[in-house]
Amino acid sequence: MLTDIEIAQNCELKHIDDIASNLGLERDDLEHYGKYKAKLPLELNNKHKINSSNLILVTAITPTPAGEGKTTTSIGLADGLSKIGKKTTVVLREPSLGPVFGIKGGAAGGGYSQVVPMEDINLHFTGDFSAIEKANNLLAALIDNNIQSKTRSLGIDPRTVLWKRSMDMNDRALRKMVTALGGKSGGIPMETGFNITAASEVMAILCISKDFEDLKERLGNIYVGDTFDHTPVFARDLNAEGAMAALLKDAIKPNLVQTLEGTPAIIHGGPFANIAQGTNSIIATKMGMSLSDYVVTEAGFGADLGAEKFFNIKCRNAGISPKAVVIVATIRALKYHGGKPLSDLKEEDLEAVVKGKENLRKHVENITGFGLPAVVCINRFESDTDAEISILKKACADCNVPFVESNGFTKGSEGTLDLAEEVVKATERCESEFIPTYDLEDSPREKIEKVCQTVYGAKYVILSNKAKRQLHRFEELGFSRLPICIAKTQKSLSDDEKLLGRPKNFDINIREFEIAAGAGFLIPIAGNILRMPGLPATPAAEGIDINNDGVISGLS
Amino acid sequence: MLTDIEIAQNCELKHIDDIASNLGLERDDLEHYGKYKAKLPLELNNKHKINSSNLILVTAITPTPAGEGKTTTSIGLADGLSKIGKKTTVVLREPSLGPVFGIKGGAAGGGYSQVVPMEDINLHFTGDFSAIEKANNLLAALIDNNIQSKTRSLGIDPRTVLWKRSMDMNDRALRKMVTALGGKSGGIPMETGFNITAASEVMAILCISKDFEDLKERLGNIYVGDTFDHTPVFARDLNAEGAMAALLKDAIKPNLVQTLEGTPAIIHGGPFANIAQGTNSIIATKMGMSLSDYVVTEAGFGADLGAEKFFNIKCRNAGISPKAVVIVATIRALKYHGGKPLSDLKEEDLEAVVKGKENLRKHVENITGFGLPAVVCINRFESDTDAEISILKKACADCNVPFVESNGFTKGSEGTLDLAEEVVKATERCESEFIPTYDLEDSPREKIEKVCQTVYGAKYVILSNKAKRQLHRFEELGFSRLPICIAKTQKSLSDDEKLLGRPKNFDINIREFEIAAGAGFLIPIAGNILRMPGLPATPAAEGIDINNDGVISGLS
Repeated sequence: MLTDIEIAQNCELKHIDDIASNLGLERDDLEHYGKYKAKLPLELNNKHKINSSNLILVTAITPTPAGEGKTTTSIGLADGLSKIGKKTTVVLREPSLGPVFGIKGGAAGGGYSQVVPMEDINLHFTGDFSAIEKANNLLAALIDNNIQSKTRSLGIDPRTVLWKRSMDMNDRALRKMVTALGGKSGGIPMETGFNITAASEVMAILCISKDFEDLKERLGNIYVGDTFDHTPVFARDLNAEGAMAALLKDAIKPNLVQTLEGTPAIIHGGPFANIAQGTNSIIATKMGMSLSDYVVTEAGFGADLGAEKFFNIKCRNAGISPKAVVIVATIRALKYHGGKPLSDLKEEDLEAVVKGKENLRKHVENITGFGLPAVVCINRFESDTDAEISILKKACADCNVPFVESNGFTKGSEGTLDLAEEVVKATERCESEFIPTYDLEDSPREKIEKVCQTVYGAKYVILSNKAKRQLHRFEELGFSRLPICIAKTQKSLSDDEKLLGRPKNFDINIREFEIAAGAGFLIPIAGNILRMPGLPATPAAEGIDINNDGVISGLS
Repeated sequence: MLTDIEIAQNCELKHIDDIASNLGLERDDLEHYGKYKAKLPLELNNKHKINSSNLILVTAITPTPAGEGKTTTSIGLADGLSKIGKKTTVVLREPSLGPVFGIKGGAAGGGYSQVVPMEDINLHFTGDFSAIEKANNLLAALIDNNIQSKTRSLGIDPRTVLWKRSMDMNDRALRKMVTALGGKSGGIPMETGFNITAASEVMAILCISKDFEDLKERLGNIYVGDTFDHTPVFARDLNAEGAMAALLKDAIKPNLVQTLEGTPAIIHGGPFANIAQGTNSIIATKMGMSLSDYVVTEAGFGADLGAEKFFNIKCRNAGISPKAVVIVATIRALKYHGGKPLSDLKEEDLEAVVKGKENLRKHVENITGFGLPAVVCINRFESDTDAEISILKKACADCNVPFVESNGFTKGSEGTLDLAEEVVKATERCESEFIPTYDLEDSPREKIEKVCQTVYGAKYVILSNKAKRQLHRFEELGFSRLPICIAKTQKSLSDDEKLLGRPKNFDINIREFEIAAGAGFLIPIAGNILRMPGLPATPAAEGIDINNDGVISGLS
């Protein structure tokens, strides 16, 4: 089989005007970025149409390090739906440059289920990440400048400043640093660091905002740190939100591209899935729903993290609800959850599949618990045996959940027609909106307990003393009504990445809290969250090249 | 009079297709960025046409802190040339975000001589600066990663690493820092810092490259530091150049916009004018020359810095030569050079003008020394009196150089018709290509002496011991044949900013050297060069806003 970039480069792309015209848009509705990319002005959002559109969430079981293929499946499903005559848009996150130059490669799908132009999407795209980075870093510069100021100082205590700079790069050296050295003219030295741009609160804010007004309000609400006399300081105290929002004037608009098969794809925003909501922007999802009858979207990591936040944070904020949820699984991951080591996942192991399917079952129960129709989709690999598949099929029948194979990676829409049909049936079964896991009126502690117990299957939630102190402070500051965004490992339903399958009788330990006062959630932290990854020993960057005709190679 | 942004927002912009069609381009030739911006593919460069096009350089006398209005005059002149029926393009640098959020405001001209859409041009534009920043920072991440690597280490001595990260922001806290803290997983701690993106060597490289091949070669040539056993390490040793060039795949293409009067404007690249060449990209200038009969361009700071580098570095590299040079002066600056304090420049002071005109005379001599026709252009302010103007007029007559008033700021092309006519006549007088100040075969020391003595009017050049040692090392490494790019204050013809007017009997002190092995010049440093500015007490950012319709205010 060809590599992803070869397949993408062999594809004859349609002009973006033609893609848009399938959505009922005129050339003049678009803001073109070359021939194959366009930004969609916010005015194209159509409230009435949103209510009648079928939103489909693609989520996954607890993933292995390689991922289960959510993006590839989402793109394949959208192509399949288009193929069976449904007016469909796939709505996805934008890739980060970190993994592109690091180890994982880009994030534009794979095989015959990709979004194109893949080089553009993976490299800089329409500049959204850069604009977000700039807005983030402008606030940092204004904070440091205020601390340095003799005449206009707010009295910010540099030791309390929570705001970090951001860069869309895997660069471990930026994780922890001391800045503002070099004497008086260099500023007041501070212990700080950079987050990768996807982990910036500005990214989370952009993805949860409805319009410029909402964006500015949220940017202004960013909690920056405290003054020496313990008064909280917000971005608005630095008059930062206007210029930050001005920097985001284009980044707020969703980007239209296409799949290899010419299905419209809207790609917009890319917040981290642990300390943020991990899914594309609300504006983009609503744009997709405004323009088509079926919208396929995905949320980061497994359903415990991605789907939970998708419902309780994103959908609640946006006032939308999916009509069906696809849970992507791979036989390899099920074997892994059944105790098989990563290196041996290609070998048939029926016993491991039997044990591992308990992980899938828990995710299915969770989706059903949200009151929505679930479809289990096996992203098929060559090494999967029929015997392994039939165990899974039976397990799904036992849970009364439809089970479909997807071969989008190898066959494009031809490999996802069954999935598409099954998903359409599921949307037709959907009778109501999702049931939230908690009420916003619940106390933060109650919210955390409800998510940990209902979604993760935990027994107790244990708060460290530090976490208790912080929570008290955040409650004092009036943040109790915010939804919660738990940061924990994606490798287990628990907070211990070694507990595979469906762990039981475990506790969740909340070590500390963070606050995203602008994005609007409280972040209980259960584990170590790396917000600035490093490059591997042999970075993917070393293999990337461009020739004199501007043709790029080595991207994956 | 209205503010710049009000004038710009009142302007009814033409679709960029219409601007392009005046240049003989079709819609399909362009890569659109919305309706009013487009990238021009490199294939549009036309060698034959370049040779017959009239390139006009706009430079200035030694400037006051407010600048003399080179960009505004360039735009006004281009509009004037268009008005008198000449097919003209103005080719300029892209603004940096640093001054936009700092104190100086944007750099898209002013009054009725502006390029538009000014908000886009000033904020992020087509993402070129961000792409340059990313390429710069990818190399930094690869360096740190190699230093951290156990298996693939090149043995780079962290204390020798010259390469800094970059950010397009005025942020003094980033000037000097210690990175890679936090123990083993955080990397090897290093003393380093950030340059503002305009000061990055990647910016200089992009602006001097001819195509992707040249770009990659230059990126690979970047001198990163030394190994522990004193072997020089280049970016190519880290296999960095392919991915860096891939990140620049769009940034390498010039951007087409328009002036308020619909004259085509190509805006591309923005290297610093002290430690780099300080003028837009060679590709952009050649693109302008390929597409029109008259091309107006400018070079940073006064003629001693900007024009000298324009000729000896840019034009020599590009194989082009201007047909006329406009020297912009203001009565205010002449009074300042005549000893009048900055605060009193609005008062008439004939004596100060008489003394100050010596600065102008030296710049005129320099341009004449390059063998090119000069035109002196007075950028007129309301406070200028007729008596002051006539002193200048007489001085120009004495030097046998045409003198014209320009009122582009207040009147647009109506205020620059005389200038346009005079410039056309000057191009017709031009008989040969510019005469370089030095040969590439001259030793670095000879090159420095020739520039300092001929252009600055210095007596001797004094190299510090450090500079001598460094020069010796760079000569050993084979860099002797490179042109030189002297970094010194723009506030004086000398290296002492207090010596106004036309200083004589001064020496130039070269404190140290830097090398831009990729861009291809040796940088003798005569003074303190700030590569990462700070924000002022009240940053312009605080006044910038965007409303719910996406309309920006407070930019200047």
